[in-house]
Amino acid sequence: MFASKENLDFMLYDVFDAESLLKYPYYAEHSRETFDMISETAMKIGTNLLRPVLTEMDKKPPELNGGKVKVLPIVKDIMKEYGEGGWISAIAPMETGGQQLPYLVNVVPNFIFAAANYSASVYLILTAEAAHLIESFGTAEMKETYIPNMFAGKWQGTMALTEPQAGTSLADIATSAEPTSGGYYKIKGQKIFISASEHDGVENVVNLLLARIKGAPAGVKGISLFVVPNKRVSADGTLIPNDVNIAGTYHKLGYKGCPINQLSLGEEENCRGYLVGEPNKGLAYMFQMMNAARLSVGLGATAIASAAYYASLEYAKERPQGRSMGEKDINAPQIPIVEHADVKRMLLFQRAVVEGSLSLLFQCNKYNDLTKVLTGEEREKYALLLDLLTPVAKSYPSEMGILAVSQGLQILGGYGYCDEFPLEQFYRDVRIHPIHEGTTGIHGITILGRNITMNDGRAFKIYLEELQSVIKEAKKLPVLEPYALELAAALQKLQEVSAHLLKLSKEKGREFFLADATLYLELFGIIAIAWQWLLQAVAVQKILKTKDNLSAADTNFYSGKMYTCRYFFGYELPKIDGLCRRLLNTDGLTVEAKADFF
Amino acid sequence: MFASKENLDFMLYDVFDAESLLKYPYYAEHSRETFDMISETAMKIGTNLLRPVLTEMDKKPPELNGGKVKVLPIVKDIMKEYGEGGWISAIAPMETGGQQLPYLVNVVPNFIFAAANYSASVYLILTAEAAHLIESFGTAEMKETYIPNMFAGKWQGTMALTEPQAGTSLADIATSAEPTSGGYYKIKGQKIFISASEHDGVENVVNLLLARIKGAPAGVKGISLFVVPNKRVSADGTLIPNDVNIAGTYHKLGYKGCPINQLSLGEEENCRGYLVGEPNKGLAYMFQMMNAARLSVGLGATAIASAAYYASLEYAKERPQGRSMGEKDINAPQIPIVEHADVKRMLLFQRAVVEGSLSLLFQCNKYNDLTKVLTGEEREKYALLLDLLTPVAKSYPSEMGILAVSQGLQILGGYGYCDEFPLEQFYRDVRIHPIHEGTTGIHGITILGRNITMNDGRAFKIYLEELQSVIKEAKKLPVLEPYALELAAALQKLQEVSAHLLKLSKEKGREFFLADATLYLELFGIIAIAWQWLLQAVAVQKILKTKDNLSAADTNFYSGKMYTCRYFFGYELPKIDGLCRRLLNTDGLTVEAKADFF
Repeated sequence: MFASKENLDFMLYDVFDAESLLKYPYYAEHSRETFDMISETAMKIGTNLLRPVLTEMDKKPPELNGGKVKVLPIVKDIMKEYGEGGWISAIAPMETGGQQLPYLVNVVPNFIFAAANYSASVYLILTAEAAHLIESFGTAEMKETYIPNMFAGKWQGTMALTEPQAGTSLADIATSAEPTSGGYYKIKGQKIFISASEHDGVENVVNLLLARIKGAPAGVKGISLFVVPNKRVSADGTLIPNDVNIAGTYHKLGYKGCPINQLSLGEEENCRGYLVGEPNKGLAYMFQMMNAARLSVGLGATAIASAAYYASLEYAKERPQGRSMGEKDINAPQIPIVEHADVKRMLLFQRAVVEGSLSLLFQCNKYNDLTKVLTGEEREKYALLLDLLTPVAKSYPSEMGILAVSQGLQILGGYGYCDEFPLEQFYRDVRIHPIHEGTTGIHGITILGRNITMNDGRAFKIYLEELQSVIKEAKKLPVLEPYALELAAALQKLQEVSAHLLKLSKEKGREFFLADATLYLELFGIIAIAWQWLLQAVAVQKILKTKDNLSAADTNFYSGKMYTCRYFFGYELPKIDGLCRRLLNTDGLTVEAKADFF
Repeated sequence: MFASKENLDFMLYDVFDAESLLKYPYYAEHSRETFDMISETAMKIGTNLLRPVLTEMDKKPPELNGGKVKVLPIVKDIMKEYGEGGWISAIAPMETGGQQLPYLVNVVPNFIFAAANYSASVYLILTAEAAHLIESFGTAEMKETYIPNMFAGKWQGTMALTEPQAGTSLADIATSAEPTSGGYYKIKGQKIFISASEHDGVENVVNLLLARIKGAPAGVKGISLFVVPNKRVSADGTLIPNDVNIAGTYHKLGYKGCPINQLSLGEEENCRGYLVGEPNKGLAYMFQMMNAARLSVGLGATAIASAAYYASLEYAKERPQGRSMGEKDINAPQIPIVEHADVKRMLLFQRAVVEGSLSLLFQCNKYNDLTKVLTGEEREKYALLLDLLTPVAKSYPSEMGILAVSQGLQILGGYGYCDEFPLEQFYRDVRIHPIHEGTTGIHGITILGRNITMNDGRAFKIYLEELQSVIKEAKKLPVLEPYALELAAALQKLQEVSAHLLKLSKEKGREFFLADATLYLELFGIIAIAWQWLLQAVAVQKILKTKDNLSAADTNFYSGKMYTCRYFFGYELPKIDGLCRRLLNTDGLTVEAKADFF
């Protein structure tokens, strides 16, 4: 087991009320039945197709050979299934061959696939997100050329941003694009760390690439977006090489089932790129894909942590070791380690991270749906919430996913460190997430330096209102009142810290202000997850109040939910005390420490 | 660079005053010159012999072939150097061929070797510790047979405790020992996860093994200690196989340069074990080796974190990316990332963990020396301190070492995730430490459930006095007064939490009392490291007051020390707030959660 169907259903229907989306015309063709079918089919694919090759894809990583990147043959089957099953096109409009599935519901298959085999899921996600970018900003011809092949799983999509001198600093992108009379641009440059940018599981790769048109302004204002396929479509419709050369494939710690390559473009002056949208607006367009990818990264981390949770839970239930503290008979049989309080604590930590993060990701995807179906101020409200929370939904699962998997590994003791069990692979796989799609440090700067003040602080204000409304609801339920009060107190602290830092920004400047932005993000994240746990607890209480004759399994599930919520408020939320103490102590320590002191 | 000679000297002479040990007759043969020579030679061996094979030992892990474990040929050279250089015998008495080096000073080579190449250092450590165990409790014949060969690096030492059903629960050890008329015992059983228990870098392996003599009492009271060599010495002095069979070698996440094997003993009823000391007292004897190994594990984790720190520092100083927050010119050259506050924060975190942990380990080893040269109440004082702090000195570096290495990896971004740089290996290597030599959970139970109350709480009382004396000294220095007050406040909280938990023990029983022992250990650890940072800061202030004309390099070093101390008090110590909040909230959550809820 790598993901809980019961939990996904609980989230989808009881917490986020997926059925409420059916009232909007855009989603009217769907029903709870189609949603259920999607979950069930995804679970079958995860179990039967993806999970069985988890280890093999790790042990036999992609190899570069004669300019081609060889992956396991199964990748071709997986892409075929993604295409034929409509998984790549799921959220696309019907008019472009999609199914108009709500983002909220699409979380389910994406989560299941990533939990079953994270590397295998990336091929899908990147292709879908790249196709959506063409859908949003490409020409009619582009849509026709690329989207059907991508949706069919025949052509891989990528996002090609990073360059040797331009990682975090996208402003320094130097890949050049020279206009020609043929309607295309000649691309020349280097891209590094490009996931899935070449592999033999597909017929072609479509890179969504940032480059600078010759003569464009310096910095981010001179970046344009191009479609740069590895093979371009010639006049007669055949695919011919597009001078996109694979300079290397990386040997990585984990996430080995998907190649990350280094590209050298236009070595023979024959690499063609096709401009998407207007010149110099590329970064703005790319943010659509980046933001989607950030939620996907958060989801990927959560999914790996989910697989680790169930693997360690299974071990904990089966492994006998030690006796209860009250047992005086040394000849008594040993008990399963799941009976030890410290092991339960580690399991609760994992579950709190997994189900708390997943909840936030469902929440963000629901906001995304609402921006699609609503208009005016309502639309803006959800767009702002999504924008505000994206760094949190990317970073909290990524950072805490590492710790959750590590606790899972710890539960297995020495076996956790060996490859007989999958924990050590999960531990390696999950480490990528705080790095790709913007490091945690960058997201800290985004939330503190931009998001909480954007639109005159309106996003932050709306966010506080969202939380207050759940707090109000929870306060009415005696069993949840203490948690409602704790969340309210935490929110108060978050506001104090925010006000303090914004004041500092005026007094001491931006560097002081943002010095501890990463810690601010951590603070923000813990409170956001506490909010999600309170939401879930409210949903549980509603069920307990309205449903009679719950099965023993259901009762255990809801009891587990309540214990995990209590765990989060009892063990995780208190961590904000230390963070607030630090964030209020703005002594400029890290600003003033000189490089020579190290 | 993997370790700082300057820092080691600072610790050895300025903080822990190694020269003060010279006044004791046992150490009188030494001098600062011999100590210096040891550091310098160790650094050469680390740099020239161990570090160059770090990657190769990881990429070509040990292989089991026909019952033999093949390691790289360099391991033989390394063992030879350990033997000929006197590194294995360093702390042994001169009468058994050692050099009577203080434990305190011996930290230096052990740290350097582990920082250069952790796997390579384990061969040395295990051999030394196993030899010392024979030295302490073995017969004259055993000493003669084994110790010279072990000190020479020809025979490997191991500790063989774990069995399939007896990992954390040593009481369940089942390997049997049947007395014979030949003065030896017939050993039969399985041992798993035994480091270095067979490899072709040595001529023989000497397992210090726990087994149960037939008819012995159940539980820990029936465990005896045996010497079980892989090859035994026959009557004519030749080595013959001792029926110790290698059933497997583990494929591990990291720490791949040293084999961990599964042993099957006595498959042909021909495995001889030689009883060490009295029957049924084996666990008590083994604790000497276990406690030494615990400090070594703490040191190993610190050493890997040190190597990771310097690797990430080097990268941070060389890698240009982004511009300062105040820079408005987008055409200005990029600055090295070490100039960014968030990167400095990550570096300070690493350094705080590395140098704080190292300081605690020097401290424990100095206590060990003092138990050797002092007598009566004074001796008891230091023995109690060492006993009290061993779980902390093992666990804090192990747990925090993982996080420190992870931050080092993060500094390198995508490169940190790839094997072109050593960070990904350090990340894998360091993960072993919270597992071997007792999991973190076990050490939590030890400190809270045993150590703070042992000898009627005398150890804890003495510990508080140790800290108070540094606090008192620091209070006199205006620049350190704020930190002294913070440490005093933290100590107050530690006492409150301890008193609260001990009261709970009486009211609610042992399971409630120990449910959050791991968190208590974390709390204890943070405060212990704050103490060590204050100690270091006091030493720096003394130097600044007494030494004139410091070089620029020295000034930077001491400034760095002070910033790192400030970092620890500013960023790490506040974490106790959340821990105390949780530890005072003893709702029995993890005791009451049922296994079925998961």
